[in-house]
Amino acid sequence: MRSVSIHCTSCGQKIESKEAVFRCNICNEPVEFEIEGLKEAKINDGNLLTQTIWERYADFLPFFDKESELSLGEGFTPLTNLKKLSESIGIGDLYIKNESQNPTWSFKDRGTAYGIMHARKLGYKKIGTVSTGNMATSVAAYGAAAKMETFVLVSKNISPEKINPIAIYNPHLIKVEGNYGDLYFESLEIGKDKDIYFINSDVPMRVEGSKTIAFEICEQLNFKMPDYVIVPTSAGGNIRGIEKGFREFKVCGLIDYVPKFICAQASGCSPIYNAFMDGSNAITRVDNPHTIAHAIENPYPPSGNQVLRMLRNNGGIATAVSDYEILKAQALMAEQGIFGQPASAVPLAAVIKLKAEGFLKGNENIVCIATGSGLKYTAALDMQKLYSVECKIEKLIDFISKNY
Amino acid sequence: MRSVSIHCTSCGQKIESKEAVFRCNICNEPVEFEIEGLKEAKINDGNLLTQTIWERYADFLPFFDKESELSLGEGFTPLTNLKKLSESIGIGDLYIKNESQNPTWSFKDRGTAYGIMHARKLGYKKIGTVSTGNMATSVAAYGAAAKMETFVLVSKNISPEKINPIAIYNPHLIKVEGNYGDLYFESLEIGKDKDIYFINSDVPMRVEGSKTIAFEICEQLNFKMPDYVIVPTSAGGNIRGIEKGFREFKVCGLIDYVPKFICAQASGCSPIYNAFMDGSNAITRVDNPHTIAHAIENPYPPSGNQVLRMLRNNGGIATAVSDYEILKAQALMAEQGIFGQPASAVPLAAVIKLKAEGFLKGNENIVCIATGSGLKYTAALDMQKLYSVECKIEKLIDFISKNY
Repeated sequence: MRSVSIHCTSCGQKIESKEAVFRCNICNEPVEFEIEGLKEAKINDGNLLTQTIWERYADFLPFFDKESELSLGEGFTPLTNLKKLSESIGIGDLYIKNESQNPTWSFKDRGTAYGIMHARKLGYKKIGTVSTGNMATSVAAYGAAAKMETFVLVSKNISPEKINPIAIYNPHLIKVEGNYGDLYFESLEIGKDKDIYFINSDVPMRVEGSKTIAFEICEQLNFKMPDYVIVPTSAGGNIRGIEKGFREFKVCGLIDYVPKFICAQASGCSPIYNAFMDGSNAITRVDNPHTIAHAIENPYPPSGNQVLRMLRNNGGIATAVSDYEILKAQALMAEQGIFGQPASAVPLAAVIKLKAEGFLKGNENIVCIATGSGLKYTAALDMQKLYSVECKIEKLIDFISKNY
Repeated sequence: MRSVSIHCTSCGQKIESKEAVFRCNICNEPVEFEIEGLKEAKINDGNLLTQTIWERYADFLPFFDKESELSLGEGFTPLTNLKKLSESIGIGDLYIKNESQNPTWSFKDRGTAYGIMHARKLGYKKIGTVSTGNMATSVAAYGAAAKMETFVLVSKNISPEKINPIAIYNPHLIKVEGNYGDLYFESLEIGKDKDIYFINSDVPMRVEGSKTIAFEICEQLNFKMPDYVIVPTSAGGNIRGIEKGFREFKVCGLIDYVPKFICAQASGCSPIYNAFMDGSNAITRVDNPHTIAHAIENPYPPSGNQVLRMLRNNGGIATAVSDYEILKAQALMAEQGIFGQPASAVPLAAVIKLKAEGFLKGNENIVCIATGSGLKYTAALDMQKLYSVECKIEKLIDFISKNY
């Protein structure tokens, strides 16, 4: 058995507890697992048609046992090389890691599955989450699959387009009136009191789940590392997890170096970028956040400070792109065959911006994380220029001859 | 090189042509590939993170070469065992093959990718399709990825919810006014005239693409065959392909027998079921088709007669379920964590109906094909009973204590 401990990402204190630990009790910063003996860890080779990501990467996870496993077939998503696009932008290879091919069509399923496994292992009967988007859908779906009581706390003014695809999984769905931003911290208190394991955006098990994205990228690139990995960043759990995954593969010698990370935000809500540019160690809450990339519209990311620390250790940067740049990138990505929700297009928008600004020189190999499906938020398409023409069936052949 | 020929599924004539062949020139029935030397064929084992379905199953495909390959990471979708649900229904194992985890979130991507590879190999520069749903999206996406001129012919009265997720890929999108039902056959004429490879619903390469669903199921079940495979059926291309896949694995000895097939339709549009029950060899066009499962609302399936022939050879049956049964099955499937579009729930509705009718005895192992994502048609959710409650943030803990 490997030894596993949990530490504060800021003050470093080791925390011992039989219950789930989500934040440091001293500095209220996020906590993180540390696994000993990683040098000996290896990938469990197998046929991916009969193996889960949890079985394959079990050596790198704080725990895995087949009995508490929960899987709907999350992970093993494609990494697509967009050759034509990278040529036209003028960079090296440009890859899209397409997380829309998960069971609820976003990256959230990895962390959700792993969080619920942890909850089950600790004996919890109830789980929950605070989200109005991808995470709500994901926790509702996996909670249903696990047959656990599932609490999904959404904002009171959520639209039918967003609430119905959560409600169909039949969780305890509660529209909460009040300051929705406070609910993350409030839910942790409720969870303690009512024995509900809240699998929120940046809980340690979600970070562990996101590591599998890095592991897959390494395999898909035959362990030849890209220069940059760009992650659309909201709460900060996903970028933390992906970076941690690369770091752990380096510890055990599977890769030579960890790619540099680019934390990509929307300019209408960019607390991490703001702090990064100011040289600050701590984020400041954004007033009146507003972006079309709703999935990353978090005005006060609970892992924001840790993302700043991570970026500085990693040598990475933060950037922010406008809604106009995001919509253009969404259309451009669709023209390569990949239709992502606006947040998914943020990394591509960042590539284009960073090339124009001269930060990217022209030969860098880059992996962009496309976090969720374009079908998640089709209202964004009303802001795209979309074309169609009309023709009578009997005129069709003439029409095609003349026009194309 | 294996020898490959193409035959009419009805009159059996062998057709020789350097262009793509879609129907028999004598009886106007669908054509099908026959591959010789299948006895020697085998699965090309490899790491699925770096291998495509086309590489893995190349021995079973009429052609594959790496140069004309087109892939966005289609296939390798999960097969999920719903243990709790199968117990409550009272059958053996119940598996869902979740095709919503494809690049455009439906099974269509397999046939589209393979069809375009064929088109490229034959030298076509233009592709097209006739569809208002999953296939339109899929062809638009893969046409974009292949950088080919792509014609998507949709019905004039298509809704924005449906047209926008096609338009975002930027194909030549033509809304056609007139009898949309005739457009399938009309498009084949246009294709001949204008050198457009129309990858319609039941073209032979789409059938070949669908075989990969069967191949994966065999691997996922460790080659231990289920009793039944249930496929929501519209044009008939998908059920034909899946059945052909099992048959070919039997030829080369990978499996002992071919499961029985159940062709599942919606009662509001069930031409194949109607003909099957009448003992007829030919389908009759359905007047005024109407079902919530729009994805299978084809009043005159171009492969309908061949599906009838296939079912009789296979020993399978056809069935039909009402919109009410479909909606109930959609909700029930979501409560296991899998949210499919209404057509995806048709096989589960069929299981429940066939068990109630006594056709299923109670120990059968069944695979249901869930063809596409629930996000494809969220308007269907307006017809579901969905629950949520409201609460003020400061009352939340009391509310949870009292109510759950």
